[in-house]
Amino acid sequence: MLDNSFSEKRSVRVVVDTLRDTPDERLKAVLTSLVEHLHAFVKDIEPTQAEWQQGIEFLTTVGQMCDATRQEFVLLSDVLGVSMLVDAVNHRRSETATATTVLGPFHMVQSPHYELGADISLDHNGPPCVFAGQVRSADGTPLPGARIDVWQANGAGYYDVQQPGVQPDRNLRGLFEADDRGCFWLRTVVPRYYPIPDDGPVGQLLTATKRHPNRPAHIHVIGDAPGHVPVTTHVFIEGSPYLDSDTVFGVKQSLIRPVVIVDDPARAANYRVANPFRLLEFDIVLDRLP
Amino acid sequence: MLDNSFSEKRSVRVVVDTLRDTPDERLKAVLTSLVEHLHAFVKDIEPTQAEWQQGIEFLTTVGQMCDATRQEFVLLSDVLGVSMLVDAVNHRRSETATATTVLGPFHMVQSPHYELGADISLDHNGPPCVFAGQVRSADGTPLPGARIDVWQANGAGYYDVQQPGVQPDRNLRGLFEADDRGCFWLRTVVPRYYPIPDDGPVGQLLTATKRHPNRPAHIHVIGDAPGHVPVTTHVFIEGSPYLDSDTVFGVKQSLIRPVVIVDDPARAANYRVANPFRLLEFDIVLDRLP
Repeated sequence: MLDNSFSEKRSVRVVVDTLRDTPDERLKAVLTSLVEHLHAFVKDIEPTQAEWQQGIEFLTTVGQMCDATRQEFVLLSDVLGVSMLVDAVNHRRSETATATTVLGPFHMVQSPHYELGADISLDHNGPPCVFAGQVRSADGTPLPGARIDVWQANGAGYYDVQQPGVQPDRNLRGLFEADDRGCFWLRTVVPRYYPIPDDGPVGQLLTATKRHPNRPAHIHVIGDAPGHVPVTTHVFIEGSPYLDSDTVFGVKQSLIRPVVIVDDPARAANYRVANPFRLLEFDIVLDRLP
Repeated sequence: MLDNSFSEKRSVRVVVDTLRDTPDERLKAVLTSLVEHLHAFVKDIEPTQAEWQQGIEFLTTVGQMCDATRQEFVLLSDVLGVSMLVDAVNHRRSETATATTVLGPFHMVQSPHYELGADISLDHNGPPCVFAGQVRSADGTPLPGARIDVWQANGAGYYDVQQPGVQPDRNLRGLFEADDRGCFWLRTVVPRYYPIPDDGPVGQLLTATKRHPNRPAHIHVIGDAPGHVPVTTHVFIEGSPYLDSDTVFGVKQSLIRPVVIVDDPARAANYRVANPFRLLEFDIVLDRLP
């Protein structure tokens, strides 16, 4: 008798047994878990052959939608909450530290270095705004020389890389070094919310589930300082549409900040802007490296 | 406070909540289960960002390997045992009935009708063999007029559709009607084992897990009779290599049959073959429709 005969009951055991000689232990563990969860899914939903075929066709379309600038499987991972979950399991932080969120697909070019106070909006498309904050260690110590990498969509909801030839190269991207109090400040515009690309199979999935494709307005930030764990996060604009329904699940309450109107000629002069001015403040707290 | 803020702990609840307005109840159930099992998988293995990226790239390559004649996602489903599991949950049969196995990708053309005893091997590539059996109901009653659809690889391990211009059109395919005792017989060749297409990402996965890509020698059979549940199955050739390690998990002990040498001039004359001759016998037992 074959002792590896396939049956509904023994399906996981039979398949996992074929992985026994996998030289890479990590690959073996990942595939073993994949088989367990995939078979559990099939046993749970009991797909008809036609439904299984639909699933095969959906995944095929997702793969075939991908090219040099479009990654539909990342979008699928995003809208199923998988990208945020991978982010979460990789970034377990102290309660104090700034929460992480997804990197996203638009950090594809190096941000240019700027002096503090520079204006990163090269197309001036959107409401002008000062973006400022302080980088601190979890115990409250300011972190002089911390680096802040910032990138964002413009006031129309598009990143530079989405509009080559329309937006200036490296529009709304900047790499800054905090001053000796750990403070950073720069000029930009308030970004707009925007939809993820929804003209492919992931967009069809959103439509079929009556979900919208939008992300609320946000600025991407990577904060880093010597001896500390870097943070990849967003600051979300208070009052933006879709804060309660980000299609990629990126919003955390602790990352929402208001854009306030400041009427203070001295501060305006410091920031080299006209008074009154818009201000978005976002302090960044980093855990020490273990 | 947002009540839908994403966290490791609440990930499933947050994502499933966004499916609440899905009009199609079945789609909602399938996606809910998918999110549960997919998140459980991620929590189980805790992939690094780099591993997640590798997974995205693997799935992308699988999708991009697909074209009109190659379905790499079906192959992936096959080598992970998912295709056999979907077959199993859709074909829960009585103990008596002939066991099912996967349809496979080669039933892509209509089999030509033949009279009983016809030779379906048009290229005569392989050891000549008579294939015969009886179709019965689960209680033992013969089923006159049962239909048997047969297709197989030749003695070199290739199907006609894999070698257009080399093999004759519709080589090794045939549709037969059983006689008034439910019996069928035809002439063919003993097929050879063969590898599934292994020059793509699924082949790489097999290599990385030290699995071979082969399927043991088999003849595909669909059996059907009025008032009965059709069966899609294979008869496997006893003694073939890979019977204990079919890469798509299709083998069931109850489907293995020997090719025997029969020395019987009268039977040889009946089958219109030279004596002695090879004989593969496979009876088909169908459940009554409920």
